[in-house]
Amino acid sequence: MLLKAAELKESFEPPFYPRCFTLETSHGPVHGPQFMPVGTQGTVKALTPRDLKASHAEMILGNTYHLYLRPGHERIERLGGLHEFMRWDGPILTDSGGFQVFSLSALNKVTDNGVEFQSHLDGSRHFFTPEHSMAIQRALGSDVVMAFDECPPFTEDKATVAKSMERTLAWARRCRDFKLKPHQKLFGIVQGGMFTDLREECLEKLVAIGFDGYALGGLSIGEPVQVMHEMVKIMGPKMPQDKARYLMGVGRPEDLIVGVAYGIDMFDCVMPTRNARNGQLFTSEGKVNIKNAKYVEDTGPLDPQCDCYTCTTFTRAYLRHLFVCGEHLSGILNSIHNVHFYLSLMRRLRDAIAQNRFDEIALPLYTRSL
Amino acid sequence: MLLKAAELKESFEPPFYPRCFTLETSHGPVHGPQFMPVGTQGTVKALTPRDLKASHAEMILGNTYHLYLRPGHERIERLGGLHEFMRWDGPILTDSGGFQVFSLSALNKVTDNGVEFQSHLDGSRHFFTPEHSMAIQRALGSDVVMAFDECPPFTEDKATVAKSMERTLAWARRCRDFKLKPHQKLFGIVQGGMFTDLREECLEKLVAIGFDGYALGGLSIGEPVQVMHEMVKIMGPKMPQDKARYLMGVGRPEDLIVGVAYGIDMFDCVMPTRNARNGQLFTSEGKVNIKNAKYVEDTGPLDPQCDCYTCTTFTRAYLRHLFVCGEHLSGILNSIHNVHFYLSLMRRLRDAIAQNRFDEIALPLYTRSL
Repeated sequence: MLLKAAELKESFEPPFYPRCFTLETSHGPVHGPQFMPVGTQGTVKALTPRDLKASHAEMILGNTYHLYLRPGHERIERLGGLHEFMRWDGPILTDSGGFQVFSLSALNKVTDNGVEFQSHLDGSRHFFTPEHSMAIQRALGSDVVMAFDECPPFTEDKATVAKSMERTLAWARRCRDFKLKPHQKLFGIVQGGMFTDLREECLEKLVAIGFDGYALGGLSIGEPVQVMHEMVKIMGPKMPQDKARYLMGVGRPEDLIVGVAYGIDMFDCVMPTRNARNGQLFTSEGKVNIKNAKYVEDTGPLDPQCDCYTCTTFTRAYLRHLFVCGEHLSGILNSIHNVHFYLSLMRRLRDAIAQNRFDEIALPLYTRSL
Repeated sequence: MLLKAAELKESFEPPFYPRCFTLETSHGPVHGPQFMPVGTQGTVKALTPRDLKASHAEMILGNTYHLYLRPGHERIERLGGLHEFMRWDGPILTDSGGFQVFSLSALNKVTDNGVEFQSHLDGSRHFFTPEHSMAIQRALGSDVVMAFDECPPFTEDKATVAKSMERTLAWARRCRDFKLKPHQKLFGIVQGGMFTDLREECLEKLVAIGFDGYALGGLSIGEPVQVMHEMVKIMGPKMPQDKARYLMGVGRPEDLIVGVAYGIDMFDCVMPTRNARNGQLFTSEGKVNIKNAKYVEDTGPLDPQCDCYTCTTFTRAYLRHLFVCGEHLSGILNSIHNVHFYLSLMRRLRDAIAQNRFDEIALPLYTRSL
């Protein structure tokens, strides 16, 4: 069944199925629900590892496509692996490179064997197969490896999406057959576009192959947000109880709350860091565009409820000044706050679930985020 | 007498006249010889106040010209002054704005009364007099206020420089007559171009007016480095013993060593932070251009003798990667190191002076810096 925004009512109401799921990795546990800051090129932009630790980040994400192109996965392996390279001793998840190949590079050809593409850096030609993606992630040494998948545009018709899903399943089997490092876990990715029956079929077949965790991919790629929420609502509770559930590339604070409500354990998104650099800040009082003239002499903290370095040290007036001047410190302080905000939000949701108070805590948080 | 590079032999030999002079301010003591990181727009670029404290920075410099234009000195005063605005609780020195007016802005007219100029930001017209500069620095609330001076190009003939020096002296008197805040100290600036007799005359007349400290201005503005060193060698020891001596806008590590050798107490320069952002790093083993391909798999620390966060945490290979990718973290980690390097160098020189071992310590440090 195709999910259409016009037919969906916008609602966020119980029953919810939130859960606290802990993923064990050789670099420590990941307490779900958890948000993973994105470290595309071997660094979470503008943040040091100690900034991330100070915000209680547990797991970060690395991008296979970027690291393959620069500095190269074999180089990173010779340098001791991605953890050692970027001096991050906590868990790392790497994506498969598939999404970036489809979205960032000049795409030349997709076959059942793999994807030919041109680098966004220098136009050089490359070919990724499921085995290549696995070999790269093995070299990077991440704790969680993502299967190589195909991500069709959300506008594709059902027959095309079904065919693409079969390719994703065939690739998932090839990834499962690939020998990773002993400590590495492999997650399968549920595709199937905006069609609930295809999604369910994909999940069922992935479970039959058997993975260490399952992700919802191909969401938050341009489709209406109600459609994404509805798909999460339908699919989240159906994913295996005993494995981690990961909603890829999502999202805004309200999207994370929805995801948690329907049983998602893990999230990643560039939004907190990217928006930080653009002066878009998330606070307990709603969104703040720090460039706004009304903050020019505002001596209050960015977020009075936040205990991050930025909020406990500086004023909105100063943060505005830094942003207007294009100062490096603007991106640093804003990123510290936004990442802290996301991680604090997830901690509050975890605590609420543990105390059996999720509905009571999450509903007002959701409303305030909008 | 005009100092000409061709007539100067390049030498750095005793006798030296280094000293440990402590400048007391209402925000704490400044232990000379001391280097002041430059915080042009209310932030030392890419560094947080806690980064600066971790590197044992004591005093930082703020730029009157930039802060006057943005966010405005009256605004900063309403927000509690510059210390409060940027959350720096240590001593701050502000320059007079003179140098920037002459070097950054479109200059319209200089008269005995002051300088008319156009903002480098929006072309708006402004007029600075000595009294304006004092009023701005009073509003900023810095601990050390610099007199408003005229800085002629180093190529000017003696008659022109002499005339300019008289203007600087007249302006110095007007600055001295201006009522600053009780905690603020006022430093006079020795001009006189590359002419030793003019410099000596200027110093003598400034001392007659009476300031809380004396600076050598108008050096490191394009003249050959031997000329600058020779002027410091001649003038440093002649500056009053009981007041702070400040060499403005200098310089490279070797220039600081020369300055200290001839009795200078305070330095400032954008070099450590600007070079950091350009990948030019100072180390105990000489200069490192981190972009260099030879560092691509170098797992050693940037500087094995340095105890900064960058050197104790990351590899040269990683720092190179960050620089090549243009990552924010590159500027951050490089700036942490370069500022730490400068401040550590000064601490070593202070310790050497205190132990009466300056010649023994400084000569090899100087040679290694070249």
